[in-house]
Amino acid sequence: MTPYEIIARKRDGHPLTAEEIRYFITEYLNGTVKDYQMAAWLMAVFFQGLDDQETFELTRTYIQSGEVIDLSDIPGVKVDKHSTGGVGDKTSIVLAPLVASCGVPVPMISGRGLGHTGGTLDKLESIPGFNTQLSVAEFKRLLAEHGVAMIGQTETIVPADKRIYALRDVTATVESIPLITASIMSKKIAEGIDALVLDVKFGSGAFMAEVEKARTLAQKLIEVGRAFGKRVHASLTNMDQPLGNKIGNWLEIEECLETFHGGGPQDFVELTVRLSARMLLLAGRVATLEEGISLSTEQLQNGSAFRKFLELTAAQGGDTTVLEHPERYPKAAHQHTITAPAEGFIQSMNTRQIGLAAVLLGAGRLRKEDPVDPVAGIHVFKKTGYAVRQGEPLMVLYTNREAAVQEAERKILNAIRFGAEPPEPLPLILDELGD
Amino acid sequence: MTPYEIIARKRDGHPLTAEEIRYFITEYLNGTVKDYQMAAWLMAVFFQGLDDQETFELTRTYIQSGEVIDLSDIPGVKVDKHSTGGVGDKTSIVLAPLVASCGVPVPMISGRGLGHTGGTLDKLESIPGFNTQLSVAEFKRLLAEHGVAMIGQTETIVPADKRIYALRDVTATVESIPLITASIMSKKIAEGIDALVLDVKFGSGAFMAEVEKARTLAQKLIEVGRAFGKRVHASLTNMDQPLGNKIGNWLEIEECLETFHGGGPQDFVELTVRLSARMLLLAGRVATLEEGISLSTEQLQNGSAFRKFLELTAAQGGDTTVLEHPERYPKAAHQHTITAPAEGFIQSMNTRQIGLAAVLLGAGRLRKEDPVDPVAGIHVFKKTGYAVRQGEPLMVLYTNREAAVQEAERKILNAIRFGAEPPEPLPLILDELGD
Repeated sequence: MTPYEIIARKRDGHPLTAEEIRYFITEYLNGTVKDYQMAAWLMAVFFQGLDDQETFELTRTYIQSGEVIDLSDIPGVKVDKHSTGGVGDKTSIVLAPLVASCGVPVPMISGRGLGHTGGTLDKLESIPGFNTQLSVAEFKRLLAEHGVAMIGQTETIVPADKRIYALRDVTATVESIPLITASIMSKKIAEGIDALVLDVKFGSGAFMAEVEKARTLAQKLIEVGRAFGKRVHASLTNMDQPLGNKIGNWLEIEECLETFHGGGPQDFVELTVRLSARMLLLAGRVATLEEGISLSTEQLQNGSAFRKFLELTAAQGGDTTVLEHPERYPKAAHQHTITAPAEGFIQSMNTRQIGLAAVLLGAGRLRKEDPVDPVAGIHVFKKTGYAVRQGEPLMVLYTNREAAVQEAERKILNAIRFGAEPPEPLPLILDELGD
Repeated sequence: MTPYEIIARKRDGHPLTAEEIRYFITEYLNGTVKDYQMAAWLMAVFFQGLDDQETFELTRTYIQSGEVIDLSDIPGVKVDKHSTGGVGDKTSIVLAPLVASCGVPVPMISGRGLGHTGGTLDKLESIPGFNTQLSVAEFKRLLAEHGVAMIGQTETIVPADKRIYALRDVTATVESIPLITASIMSKKIAEGIDALVLDVKFGSGAFMAEVEKARTLAQKLIEVGRAFGKRVHASLTNMDQPLGNKIGNWLEIEECLETFHGGGPQDFVELTVRLSARMLLLAGRVATLEEGISLSTEQLQNGSAFRKFLELTAAQGGDTTVLEHPERYPKAAHQHTITAPAEGFIQSMNTRQIGLAAVLLGAGRLRKEDPVDPVAGIHVFKKTGYAVRQGEPLMVLYTNREAAVQEAERKILNAIRFGAEPPEPLPLILDELGD
C-alpha cells in the first residue's frame, strides 16, 4: 500500500478499502502523503466519486483525527442545524436561540463566509464583543448553563478536514458530493450531537446549483449521519434569490432583530420556523410538525426567542445594548440606491453574483485571510416575481469602499433578468427527506 | 486569470487558451502555482484531456522553458528515434551508430529506466567509463566530429518537463496521452532535430498496453511534431513479449554486440533495421524503404555500424576493450535457471511482470534514486509461441541479490501462460504512420 497506488486505484475507478482510506488520510496528516498527492487524489475523487462505504470511512477517519466532544452529561436530545450556505442566510442566528428557548439544547459550531456566501461567525462578530473563539470546555459550560452556544471550529475538532478543506479550496476540488459529505458530517458528529437538521440549498446562490445534485448531497448526508446512529432530517430549499431582504453581517443581524420582534421577511420567517419545528420534532420536544410550527411561532412572537438570544449574546461577551438599540450601530459611509432600468417583472436573480457584489462592498471575503466590514452589504427591496416601474429603487448598497459601488451595481444589474410577464413562483422548500 | 480558475476550467472540460496554458506552466516554474495545484490540474487533464491546440501550446511552453539546441551549423538532416519504452528494448544502442555510419547525423538524448522498463543511459553506463552526462557544447562537438552522440537530459533542456514529470510520477498522472505527447515532443524538438522516428509500443510490457491508445498517442505525437515543422514517422510495435532475448543493462549490451557482429535475435534485428531504414528515408539518405533496409543490413553486416559504435564509445570515455572482449566483463554472483513446469506452448507473457522481475534482480529501479546493478538481468530462451517440454530451461536469472531469486522466479512463472495449442503469432510491427 503506497500513496501512489491509492491515487491510481481511485483514478481508475476502484473502490478503496477502509484501510486504504485510513492510511491515506492519516499519513497525510503525518506528512508521508504530500500535499500534491492529496490534491491529485482529491481531483480523482471529484471525477470517480466515493461509494457509501468509502464516504462513511472517510468521515470516520476525519472524526478520529481529533477530539470528539462528549455532551452526554448535558440532559436532553442535542440538536444542531447545518446549512450548505447561501446569500442572506442568517437562519442560524434566530434558529439556535429559538429552539433553545423551547428547552432543546443546541450545540452549534459554525463557519465563516467565503466566496459569495456569508458565514454565521462573521455575522455574530458584527455584534461588538461577541466572542466565537471559545474552547471546548467553555462551549460545554455555555451549553449546560444556557442551552445554546454558537462558536467557531476549534483546532482540536476534525483537524483532518481543516487541512484538507484548505487544500480543496485552492485546487478546485470543493464541489464533490462525497468530500462535502465527509466534511460536513465529521464536524457535526464530532460536535457531540444526537440529531441534525440539514438545510441543503439549491439554485443560483447555492454551491450545488442543480436541484438533483443537491438532492443527492442531502441523501448522502442523511445516510452517513444514520450510519453514525444520528437522526437526520434534510430540507431542499431555494437559493435562486437571496434569503430575506438583507445581505451583509450587521444588516443580517438587524433582520434577525426584526424577526425576533415579530416582523422579518416572510420567506426567512417561514424557513426558520419550519427548520425549528423539524429540530423540535427530532428532539422529541413536540409530537407533530404542526405542533413544532405553532410552538416555534409562539416563542418568536412572545419574545422568548429574543430573550434567549440576548442571554446567549451576553454569555459570549457581546454588547446587548446594540441589540436593544440597533439604531446606535455605526453606519456605512456610503449608501447607493440601484433603480430599475425599465418597467417589468423580475424574472430571475443570479444570486451568486449578488453575493459577490456584497463581497466587493466589503461584506465578505474571496480569500480566507481577507477582513470583512461589518456594516457593508445590500438591502434588497425587490425580489423575483416583483413588478417594478422604471426608476423604482431595487436595492441599496452600503459600503465604506466608495470605489467599489460602480462595479457592484454593474454586477447586480447584470444578475437580474426583467420581463413582461410574471415568472413562475419559486418554491421556498422543495422537498423534505430523512427522519 | 488565477491558478484556481484554470484548474476549474479544465476540470469542467473547457479548452484552455494559449495564454492560460502559458500562464499556468510559467507560474508553476516561478512558484506562484503550487505543486498541489499542478497535481490537481494534471489529474483534471488525465480525465478531461487536452485538444490538439492545447497539446501544441503545452509542448511549446515546455520547449520555451529552457534551451533549444541549435544544430544548424552541422550539415545534414538530423534524425533521432524515440521509443515509448519497453522490456529488453536496446534498439537505440545499435540504431544510433548504424544510422550515423550511413552518414546521417543522430543527436540522441535518452532517459533512464524506471519501473518495469529499462533505459538507454543505464545500458550505456554499464560500459566502464561511458559518460552520458555531457554538456550541450560537448554534445554538439561529438555530433560534429562523429555524426552521433548519446547523452542524458541536461538541466537546461525543457526544465518544465523535468519538474512536471517528477510530479506526475508521484501523483499517478503519467498515463495521459496529451501529457506524454508534450513531454516527449518538447524534449525531441529542443534537441535540435529535423526529423524523428517514433517507436510506439503496445502490449503487456508497454506503458500504453491497448493498441488503440498507442495508436492515438502515435497520431498525437505526429501531429505535434508536424506543427513544429518536423518530419515524423511512427511505428506501432509489439511489446507483448520482451524484445530480443536479453533483459538487463550489460546483458543488453552483449546482445547489441552479437547484433553488431551479424547475429542477434531475429525480432530485435528486424525492428532495428526497419527503424534505421525509416530514419534514412526521413533524412533523404535513401529513396525507398527497401533501399534503407538493404543499406542498413549491409552496414550491420560489414562491421561499419560496430566501428561507429566503438568510435562513439571511445569519444564518450567508454572502455572499448570490454566491447571487443565481452567475456572479460564481470559476471553476476548468482545464476538461476527457471524451467518449464509442464509441457506445452507458451501462449503469452505478461511482459510488465517480467520487467519487474528484472528490477527485483537489480537491473532496474522502482524509484528514481535507486541504484542499478549493471550485471543483473534475465536471459530469455523461450518466448511466446515456443513449444517446451517439462523441465526445459525457460530463462536464466543473473543477480547479485540471491534473496530476490525466489520472488523473481515466482513472478516470471505467474507471468507465463502455457497451453496445448500454439497461439496466434504476434505481429512485430503492427502499423506504420506519418511521414
